[in-house]
Amino acid sequence: MRTIVINTGTEILLGDVVNAHLAFIAREIFEFGLRIDEQRTISDGTTIAFALRDVFPCAEIVFVTGGLGPTTDDVTRETVAELLQLELIEDTRVREAIHSRLSLRRIALTKRVWRQAQVPIGAEVLPNDRGTAPGLYLPANVNSTVSSPHLFLLPGPPRELQPIFRQSVAPILHRITADLHPPAMRKFQLAVMGESIVEKKIGAKILAIPGIELGYCSRPGEVEVRVSGSPEAVETAEGIIQSELADAIFTTEDETLAAVVVRLLSKRGETLALAESFTGGLLAHQITNVAGASKVFLAGWVAYSNEEKIRALGVAASSIRRFGAVSQEVALEMGEGARTAARATHSIATTGIAGPSGGTAEKPVGTAFIAISSASYAPICRKFFLPSDRETFKQLLAQNAFDLLRKRLLA
Amino acid sequence: MRTIVINTGTEILLGDVVNAHLAFIAREIFEFGLRIDEQRTISDGTTIAFALRDVFPCAEIVFVTGGLGPTTDDVTRETVAELLQLELIEDTRVREAIHSRLSLRRIALTKRVWRQAQVPIGAEVLPNDRGTAPGLYLPANVNSTVSSPHLFLLPGPPRELQPIFRQSVAPILHRITADLHPPAMRKFQLAVMGESIVEKKIGAKILAIPGIELGYCSRPGEVEVRVSGSPEAVETAEGIIQSELADAIFTTEDETLAAVVVRLLSKRGETLALAESFTGGLLAHQITNVAGASKVFLAGWVAYSNEEKIRALGVAASSIRRFGAVSQEVALEMGEGARTAARATHSIATTGIAGPSGGTAEKPVGTAFIAISSASYAPICRKFFLPSDRETFKQLLAQNAFDLLRKRLLA
Repeated sequence: MRTIVINTGTEILLGDVVNAHLAFIAREIFEFGLRIDEQRTISDGTTIAFALRDVFPCAEIVFVTGGLGPTTDDVTRETVAELLQLELIEDTRVREAIHSRLSLRRIALTKRVWRQAQVPIGAEVLPNDRGTAPGLYLPANVNSTVSSPHLFLLPGPPRELQPIFRQSVAPILHRITADLHPPAMRKFQLAVMGESIVEKKIGAKILAIPGIELGYCSRPGEVEVRVSGSPEAVETAEGIIQSELADAIFTTEDETLAAVVVRLLSKRGETLALAESFTGGLLAHQITNVAGASKVFLAGWVAYSNEEKIRALGVAASSIRRFGAVSQEVALEMGEGARTAARATHSIATTGIAGPSGGTAEKPVGTAFIAISSASYAPICRKFFLPSDRETFKQLLAQNAFDLLRKRLLA
Repeated sequence: MRTIVINTGTEILLGDVVNAHLAFIAREIFEFGLRIDEQRTISDGTTIAFALRDVFPCAEIVFVTGGLGPTTDDVTRETVAELLQLELIEDTRVREAIHSRLSLRRIALTKRVWRQAQVPIGAEVLPNDRGTAPGLYLPANVNSTVSSPHLFLLPGPPRELQPIFRQSVAPILHRITADLHPPAMRKFQLAVMGESIVEKKIGAKILAIPGIELGYCSRPGEVEVRVSGSPEAVETAEGIIQSELADAIFTTEDETLAAVVVRLLSKRGETLALAESFTGGLLAHQITNVAGASKVFLAGWVAYSNEEKIRALGVAASSIRRFGAVSQEVALEMGEGARTAARATHSIATTGIAGPSGGTAEKPVGTAFIAISSASYAPICRKFFLPSDRETFKQLLAQNAFDLLRKRLLA
C-alpha cells in the first residue's frame, strides 16, 4: 500500500526544528509491512489543500502531521473536511476533554480552543492524553462520492503524536493491513559499538541470507540493528547477530539502556548512587526518566567543583593535587564516597573534560574516567578518549557508564 | 523566489537516518532572503524523474540531494540530463580528482566510479573535497528549449554537502538573489507561557500590521515567536511584543533558558546550587550543557529518597513527617540546605510527584513545589499543578524553575 507522509510546519522549513516524525512513523509502520514511499514538508496554512489534492490519487495511506491546534494557521481539519465534502460537527466528548484539561490547568477557555472539538462526519477520534487537539482517522472513501485514501491527521508535537500513534493508529493499521503478510521482524539495540564495527561483524553474513533486509540506526553510544524477511531468514539472521554481538545487545525491545539498568537492579533488589562531574546530572536524569526508578535510585551528586568532590564525596584533597580531578584515582574515590554515603549497593562516578576549554596536552578535551563501585565486588575504572561536542560527549559517556554497570549486573 | 528541496534517500524514508539537509539548507539560504517553500523525500532510483517533472513548473530554485554516487540506484545526474535534453560529457578535471582521491586511499578504480565525472553540457561543477562525486549547478533554462529552474545537484552525505554549499553554492545564490531585498526577521523566546495565551495577547495586533508574517513554535515550557516582513513592519511588531510580553521574553537569540541563567549569574559574579527531587538531575543536566557552566554551578544533589533529603540537605525529619516530602516547607528546607552546604549565592529546590504512581487525593500526580533560596533575599516557594507524562512534567517544571530564578536575577 503506497504510503505518503505530509508534515506541515513552517518551523521545519525554516530549519528551526528537525523533523522527527518521519523516522518515528517509518519505524512504527514497518511491522505492518508498510514503508513510506514519499514524504513532504509544507508550510502552515492553506498549502495543505494543494498537497492533499496532489497526493490523494497516488496513495493508499496518508499521514498528515500538524495544523490541528487552535491558532489561525492551523487549518488541516477544515481543509480535509472541505476537500472530502464532509460536515464538521462538535464532538461532545472531545469538548469535555478539552474543558477538563484546560480548567485543571486554569487556562482561559477562549473561543478558538473549541475548533479542536470539531470532527468531520465519519471520522474516528484518536484521543490525545497530552494535548487538547485529538488526532482524526478518516477511512478510505469515507465520503463515497469522493475518492480518498486512509487518512490520519495527527498533532504536530512529537510528545503528543507518538502516544496517539501507538495507542490508536497502530490498531487501525493492524486492521487495514490484515490481509497483507507483513514480514517477520526483529530488532537489537547495541550499546557503545560504532555502526561501522557492527556492519563489519555481521553485514556480509546477514546480507548473504536470501530475502533478508538489514537496517541500522545510530544514536550517540548506541546502534539499533533491524532485520526483516521470512520467519526462517529472520531466525538465521538472529542466530548470526546473537553469536557475533551477544555482549553488546542490551535489549530487543523498545527501552532505554537506563531502563534496562533499573530493571536489572530491581530484579536483584539492589540500589544505585551516582557521583557525576562532567556528565552533570545526565545519568540521574536518564535514570529518573524510568518509571519506578525511585525503588532503586537512592541519591545523586553533581560535584562540578573540586571543593564539592572533597566535601560531599570525601575525595582526598591530596588525590586531586597529585593526580588531578580528571583521573582514575579521583573517579574511584568519588564512586566509593557516593556509594557509602548513600548506603547503596552500586555507584557510578564520572569525571572528564567536556570542553570546549579546560583541556591540556596530557589530558585533552574528550578525556574521561568512569568508575563502578559495588558492595561485593572490586571497583573498576575505565579511561575513555572520545572528543566531540559537549552534549554528544555527555551522551556517549552516559551510555558507556550504564553499559559498564549493566555488564556487572549480568555477570 | 519559490524554492523546493528534494532529498533522495531510501535510508531517510526507512527512518534509519534523520534528514539533516533541510535544517542546514534552510539556515544557509535565509541570509539571501530565500525560504524553503516545500521539501520532499523520495526513494533512491527512478522516482526522481517524477518528482522533478512535478516541481519544475512551480519553483525558481530546486536543490536535489543524493543520487550522484557510483551505485546503480544513483541516477540523479542522468535523469536531469535526460529531462533537460543535455548531453553528458566527461570532465577531465573531475576525472583527475577522482583518480587521485581513490589512488591515495588504494581503492580499486572500477568502471562505475567514472560515471561521477560525467557533466551535462552547460552545468557548472561544484568541487567536492570530501568525496568523489562533485555537485552540479544548472542555471535556469540552461537548455533554452526546455523551461527549468535554477537547479543544484548535491551529494547526499552531510559532511560532503555542507562544505560544497558554503564554498560554491552560496556565491551562486548571492548572484541569483542580488536584486532581492531579504525581509527583516526577529524572534523572541518566551518562558512558561502557552502558545494560545501568547496568541491571544499579540496575534490579532501583529496580524493587523500590513505585510507581516507571524509564526510560533512550542516546546514544553516555552514558545518561540517569529515575525518577518519589511524593517518597519518588524519594528512595529517588536514594539507590540515587547510591551505585551516583556516579562516572559528570556532571549531574542538562539540560546536556552538555562544558558540565560548561566549568563546572568556570570555577569553578577554569583553562584548556584541545585537540590532536585522529581526533576532528577534534569536541572543540573541543562545547566551543565552550557559551556562555561563550571564558573557558576557549584554543586547539585539528586535527593530522591527522604533519607537523602534529611542526610545530605539537612531537611528536618519532623518537616517530612508533618507536611510530607512534597510540601512548601520541605522545598524551602532543601533549598536552604543546598545553598548553605555549597556556599552558593542562589539555589533551586524541586519536590513533586511525577507519577505514574505515588499521587494522593490531596497531592495528586502533577503536584510540585519549587523553592528559590538566595543569600540576600527572602526565599520564595511556588506550588504548581501540571499533570502530564513523566518526562514532560520534568521539562515543564525545569523551565518554571529556571524562569523563577531568571526573574530574581533581573529584579
